[in-house]
Amino acid sequence: MNIKDYTIEQLEKLSKEIRDKILDTVSQNGGHLSSTLGATDLIVAMHYVFDCTQDPFIFDVSHQSYAHKLLTDRWESFDTLRQFGGISGYTKPKESPYDYYVAGHSSTSISLAVGAAKAIALKNESDSRVPVVLIGDGSMSAGMVYEALNELGDRKYPTVIILNDNEMSIAKPIGAISRYLSQHMASPFYQKLKRKTEKLLEHLPEGATYMAKRFEESFKLITPGILFEELGIEYIGPIDGHDFEALIKALKIAKNLKKPVIVHTQTTKGKGYEIAQGQKEHWHGVSPFDRASGKSNTSSSKPSATSIFGNKLLELAKSNEKIVGVTAAMPSGTGMNIPMEVFPQRFWDVAIAEQHAVTSVGALAKEGFKPFCAIYSTFLQRGFDQIIHDVCLMDLPVVFAIDRAGIVGEDGETHQGAFDISYLRPIPNMTLLAPYNPTTFALALEFAAIYQHPCAIRYPRGAFMGSDAPSIPYALGVGQILYEGNGEVALIGYGNGVGRAMNTAGYLNFEPAIVDLRFVKPLDVALLKVLSQRYTKWFIFSDSAKIGGVGAAIVEAIHQHAIKGVEVVSFEYEDSFVTHGNTTLVEESMGLLPSQLARTIEKRLDKIKKP
Amino acid sequence: MNIKDYTIEQLEKLSKEIRDKILDTVSQNGGHLSSTLGATDLIVAMHYVFDCTQDPFIFDVSHQSYAHKLLTDRWESFDTLRQFGGISGYTKPKESPYDYYVAGHSSTSISLAVGAAKAIALKNESDSRVPVVLIGDGSMSAGMVYEALNELGDRKYPTVIILNDNEMSIAKPIGAISRYLSQHMASPFYQKLKRKTEKLLEHLPEGATYMAKRFEESFKLITPGILFEELGIEYIGPIDGHDFEALIKALKIAKNLKKPVIVHTQTTKGKGYEIAQGQKEHWHGVSPFDRASGKSNTSSSKPSATSIFGNKLLELAKSNEKIVGVTAAMPSGTGMNIPMEVFPQRFWDVAIAEQHAVTSVGALAKEGFKPFCAIYSTFLQRGFDQIIHDVCLMDLPVVFAIDRAGIVGEDGETHQGAFDISYLRPIPNMTLLAPYNPTTFALALEFAAIYQHPCAIRYPRGAFMGSDAPSIPYALGVGQILYEGNGEVALIGYGNGVGRAMNTAGYLNFEPAIVDLRFVKPLDVALLKVLSQRYTKWFIFSDSAKIGGVGAAIVEAIHQHAIKGVEVVSFEYEDSFVTHGNTTLVEESMGLLPSQLARTIEKRLDKIKKP
Repeated sequence: MNIKDYTIEQLEKLSKEIRDKILDTVSQNGGHLSSTLGATDLIVAMHYVFDCTQDPFIFDVSHQSYAHKLLTDRWESFDTLRQFGGISGYTKPKESPYDYYVAGHSSTSISLAVGAAKAIALKNESDSRVPVVLIGDGSMSAGMVYEALNELGDRKYPTVIILNDNEMSIAKPIGAISRYLSQHMASPFYQKLKRKTEKLLEHLPEGATYMAKRFEESFKLITPGILFEELGIEYIGPIDGHDFEALIKALKIAKNLKKPVIVHTQTTKGKGYEIAQGQKEHWHGVSPFDRASGKSNTSSSKPSATSIFGNKLLELAKSNEKIVGVTAAMPSGTGMNIPMEVFPQRFWDVAIAEQHAVTSVGALAKEGFKPFCAIYSTFLQRGFDQIIHDVCLMDLPVVFAIDRAGIVGEDGETHQGAFDISYLRPIPNMTLLAPYNPTTFALALEFAAIYQHPCAIRYPRGAFMGSDAPSIPYALGVGQILYEGNGEVALIGYGNGVGRAMNTAGYLNFEPAIVDLRFVKPLDVALLKVLSQRYTKWFIFSDSAKIGGVGAAIVEAIHQHAIKGVEVVSFEYEDSFVTHGNTTLVEESMGLLPSQLARTIEKRLDKIKKP
Repeated sequence: MNIKDYTIEQLEKLSKEIRDKILDTVSQNGGHLSSTLGATDLIVAMHYVFDCTQDPFIFDVSHQSYAHKLLTDRWESFDTLRQFGGISGYTKPKESPYDYYVAGHSSTSISLAVGAAKAIALKNESDSRVPVVLIGDGSMSAGMVYEALNELGDRKYPTVIILNDNEMSIAKPIGAISRYLSQHMASPFYQKLKRKTEKLLEHLPEGATYMAKRFEESFKLITPGILFEELGIEYIGPIDGHDFEALIKALKIAKNLKKPVIVHTQTTKGKGYEIAQGQKEHWHGVSPFDRASGKSNTSSSKPSATSIFGNKLLELAKSNEKIVGVTAAMPSGTGMNIPMEVFPQRFWDVAIAEQHAVTSVGALAKEGFKPFCAIYSTFLQRGFDQIIHDVCLMDLPVVFAIDRAGIVGEDGETHQGAFDISYLRPIPNMTLLAPYNPTTFALALEFAAIYQHPCAIRYPRGAFMGSDAPSIPYALGVGQILYEGNGEVALIGYGNGVGRAMNTAGYLNFEPAIVDLRFVKPLDVALLKVLSQRYTKWFIFSDSAKIGGVGAAIVEAIHQHAIKGVEVVSFEYEDSFVTHGNTTLVEESMGLLPSQLARTIEKRLDKIKKP
């Protein structure tokens, strides 16, 4: 039976089954939970009113798209969610023709809808196709949403934007409905919704929960009605996002408008799983857990790089009042929540707004402060121009703390921290360093805290691979030979690559030198020259893209400084996007596990020896 | 006498002198004209009310800041404006302690003000300092402005934002004044202003002038009052930006508010130079001209790469209706105006909104169109994440047409097109190519127009250096040997670097091979292998950053493919920001003129021969 023939009761039952399936799968595999549960009714309604084989279904970030996957031929395979070779946690056209576009970074959806709408207009398909966007209120802080709305409102392409407002915390009663729609929405229908909303508002906890929410709230002040209408976009709402009758009615109106229109819906995060409902932060993205108790099944004995960062930054901030910091909507993700709790006046969450985050701390540095800007490798791409133009051109002492550098595992392609070395290294005045274990991370942060120029420190998701080794304090551009080798081979590591080199050495039948490069910019050319005197086969280890990466930096230096007689092989990521899955399995598929690398080295040496 | 003791009449006289000086200098040296003339009164009033030794003066883009320079110890040196070693056309702290921050890219000012305001609060200097922003309405389309306003309105840091609305074309009468200020602004004072504004509106030309303006207008619909107030930012306006009495009064109110406040002023572009007044596009940035007639003094016999692009794109668009295009507020700057005039439905100006520009054409490509995205090298940095996430991850056939690649001359540090190869090369699925003369540019565009993956074509500001040579059509990853050499030396050029190599060869006392690399990704490894058989000294020519650039690509390949016995020296930009001035002088300072490069090659060969 086609979903379009379902009754309201059947839709409700379907939603419940979907939520149940999501809960089952996510408790097993980990994944995004509360947003997917909250958006399930919206997605079921989308499929009821629209047709994803015709209408571009555009999910912002797409972490909430599980219900869509379950509704489009992926019910059976859904238990492979986020597993290597399995279903992606995000929309992915290569996985299914029903997924219109890739998404994993926030706030791209309305731009995509504008592009799709232009195409539909040019192809004269406006009668049969309309782009449908599903976007959460948290995604509305990023500037590119406004850039897109600015064009959409001007050109008036038919587009339906479902705003999934899932915070249950509207800062003030919602503004007027658009003139056009007020007729449709008037009287019993709208009034009932309004009463529901007001009732919801009464039960709000006093004193907002989390810093980040403030921005979403400040956005909400302008969202309903006023902003969109002024931008030339029709507005319908607020709609109870779990009331199919209301939802379907609103979506049908929106579909038939043939104009850009926002359907403002309110949903409950974690809907249908009592333990997650109302728990805003914890249940956004989770590792496997016990469904009955809600308790996590995973435990880690090693501290994460993130927590080391947060604690060390707090320690540094205690002794230096000039230290300040910024995160773009990832306080606990980056560990910035730790100093933030102690020094709320000096550490800011600026919402999903990487461009503004970077430029604003530039000014703080200009004023004599020492800013730490903690952003994941993949999201820092959004602040690239600002790093060049507003930090490095001014040669200001901003520290970029780059979490999730390297393979991030289950989030996959859109989230891999592969490119940061390649895109930051060409920027003048920039210094790049990376630690390989908790001790060197603390030393690197101590160095960064007093360094008077821009620098970026990269570190992996989860725990470092590296074990302990005696470590000297950091000095600009100075690497360290950790172990001398007994042959011609040196393993040169950068960041987590040092740990990978150490582990690889354990599989070798000889003792290579192991070098902690520490800085990829400036490079320790003196050290390379020393190494070249003794070791002629260099293997480079870094969890980053090969093009323009650490191996590239080393071969550039070899040519520039005429270092002779050295063979260089780099174990970095080849030139393709890296898929999702358990990090070990992903790395295995790339031949990057220490045991595999050891075999590669031995083969290579064999080949070099017997040509 | 201190400007703060001036009478209104004296301020008016001062403004007139400043405009006269600007007109004199810009007609000699070229530069930004109409915006600087229009903003002069605002800047004089800023200096009257605020103190740039205390208050951070933040000029958005800062192309309008000439009056500020003239008021801060640069009157005598101003005739060196934009010349090598002279005064920069933008604010530059290294040039003067009165310049708070570098700016050259749009829309960073409010983020900087937020950072400065945070610093002022932390330092308890709020009684004596307030950040003052001067921003034009055109800069308001970029998303980062909204990211910054979002935080500013929430945290309420005292900040004065002077919105310089210089289009004379308010789309509809201006909205309400903020509650707080309505008392101050009521009765005679405000009413007079209102009458003036309405009078101005009556004289508006019917039918908007330029496509780009539409966005500015659509922004204007929300600006006055509503948007800012909803964002928690006070609003004063509209103020006649040439009426010192009104301006000073408004700025004093704003200064004393101790809140974020927008002072919305209306100014006349080109104020004081009748020929430029009302001429919106032409007089924004100009080359030297005759002050009396307004006629340009420069003429170029060679066609610019920009015009070749525009004309060829029009030709391609005529024969392929799937070709579409986008520019981010630079229609004539990129040559996109040429196809735009013929096919207004297929070529869009999306305003200063590079992120949205990139992502929206991704969706067009997904829908089967062939988009050309024409953005200057330096501004494309703003769309970096979108290129990765919304184009390359989807492997979509978007063509990035990268104008102003290489040294751009008088605009200087903020505008150099240095980094595009380095930041695009690591992106999987991306193809990079570059032509060296009009013929190869046409061939490269023909290739790109049918290529089924993302690609980026870079080309210089102005004319190509390269002369004609027989050229074959482009094939993916295939370079061309233009001239065989009679010795061991090969000059390998990429893009405009081929022309530089050709000209360099003219100064050599032997005949080097000259190679047109054509593609830096994928690299023609077969060609490199062939070259290595015959030529052992390779000199690489590209107008781009050395780190991660063309030379780097070649040495990476040498190591990866075990190409032996080759010395590689790269003539690309060393690791520092490149200053402003006449391109030849700038290149001379970097040792990049063909005559200099020839000497460097000869010295190098000498050195290699006699160790």
